[in-house]
Amino acid sequence: MTNERPLILITNDDGVWAKGINELIECLKDLGDLVVFAPDGPRSGMGSAITSLVPIKYALLKKEEGLTIYSCTGTPVDCVKLAINEVLERKPDLLVSGINHGGNMAICVNYSGTMGAAAEGCIFNIPSIGVSLLDHAADADFSECCRLGRMLARRVLKEGLPHGTYLNLNVPKLPQVKGLKVCRQADGRWVREFMRSENACGEPVFWLTGAFESAKPIHPDNDMLALDSGYASLVPCKIDVTDYDFMNTLNGWSLQIFNS
Amino acid sequence: MTNERPLILITNDDGVWAKGINELIECLKDLGDLVVFAPDGPRSGMGSAITSLVPIKYALLKKEEGLTIYSCTGTPVDCVKLAINEVLERKPDLLVSGINHGGNMAICVNYSGTMGAAAEGCIFNIPSIGVSLLDHAADADFSECCRLGRMLARRVLKEGLPHGTYLNLNVPKLPQVKGLKVCRQADGRWVREFMRSENACGEPVFWLTGAFESAKPIHPDNDMLALDSGYASLVPCKIDVTDYDFMNTLNGWSLQIFNS
Repeated sequence: MTNERPLILITNDDGVWAKGINELIECLKDLGDLVVFAPDGPRSGMGSAITSLVPIKYALLKKEEGLTIYSCTGTPVDCVKLAINEVLERKPDLLVSGINHGGNMAICVNYSGTMGAAAEGCIFNIPSIGVSLLDHAADADFSECCRLGRMLARRVLKEGLPHGTYLNLNVPKLPQVKGLKVCRQADGRWVREFMRSENACGEPVFWLTGAFESAKPIHPDNDMLALDSGYASLVPCKIDVTDYDFMNTLNGWSLQIFNS
Repeated sequence: MTNERPLILITNDDGVWAKGINELIECLKDLGDLVVFAPDGPRSGMGSAITSLVPIKYALLKKEEGLTIYSCTGTPVDCVKLAINEVLERKPDLLVSGINHGGNMAICVNYSGTMGAAAEGCIFNIPSIGVSLLDHAADADFSECCRLGRMLARRVLKEGLPHGTYLNLNVPKLPQVKGLKVCRQADGRWVREFMRSENACGEPVFWLTGAFESAKPIHPDNDMLALDSGYASLVPCKIDVTDYDFMNTLNGWSLQIFNS
């Protein structure tokens, strides 16, 4: 038993200069010693991407009592890996990724660098939370989101999380949410995903865009609905993506008869 | 009912020039009309990353009876999205991603561009399979892997897959596998993940590397064990990562008492 304050690792995918991560730092400061290890610029949509073809590096930006800030040339997941493998002197008690400028509900968890970093913390057996605000504006108002993120961080520091489970908190763009709902990940997909444009040579180029389309049936406890109704949503996510039900069906396919 | 041959979308993360994807094309040619839409170079470790900060483009490389090949500047997931949204005239009956040069067992599914593309096909309700050979060599022998991949592709064309489920096939580096086992995703993580080096300015840089360390308990039906024993492994994977068991626990945390 030591008297050490909790060590909290903070990262994001909007980069170390984004408002969201800096508001998060302010609101978690009194909960422990903070180490920020975040990308040196925007890495939105990087999911759990890792950098393997080129090397990465990092730089110390600030060191003061209870707060150290590094920037890193890699992806959000690279940040988590490099911090834990090479920089931190002890294992963090908590990882918080965010606050993301923009929502990461539904299947966004698949593409989100914010959630990729939270998943990576979970792989390292660190209780990990991704926090996102449904507002892409650079100067978004993070105050309600900070209140909820801080509340959840305190609780997770106290309770821990099961091996292989991490949390996805999304907060609607409202001065005050109606409450917080524990949800499932909404099912659906994006449609009309590209805006056609052209480059300076007159060649067609495609910008990612799109609208979310829910899949049927729509479960009343999904995160999309909660957010649409003015609630913050909290989805517990798993690293293990095995479809255990379908394993039985596949065994029934008798694929082993193709064995030699 | 039409007399159309099945349309098979093929992609990968090693790039359109890799041996693995070209062997896959050869072995699937007689199963349907193939459209290859793959990155113009290596995109290993891109997971489900998407390109949102810059536009992407694509180029037609080849068009002959039953086979059309495009290259794309984006990630594997971008390739799937762009092909389906902007290029293909009808929805594919099957997506096969690979053959990857290197295994994508255990939690690799998290980081793998090969599996990211398969997940994306699944999100579009296309029966989707990722195929990987446990051999990183550029000139690896894909013959046994092709045999199994082809067998599985035929079966999935016939049976389909449930909404939200895709398949992860890994094949050991052997002239002949002992058989095929339906498995769960092995639990664990990488350790000693970076090799320290320096750049031309003498600054420290970090190359991603590492060794896989299994988590306890080790389940006898995990994919890592099957591969180590000379079997090909087949893991059904889910898009929905919700931890349904833990939803109840979180509800017990009474987080709503923090509601206004």
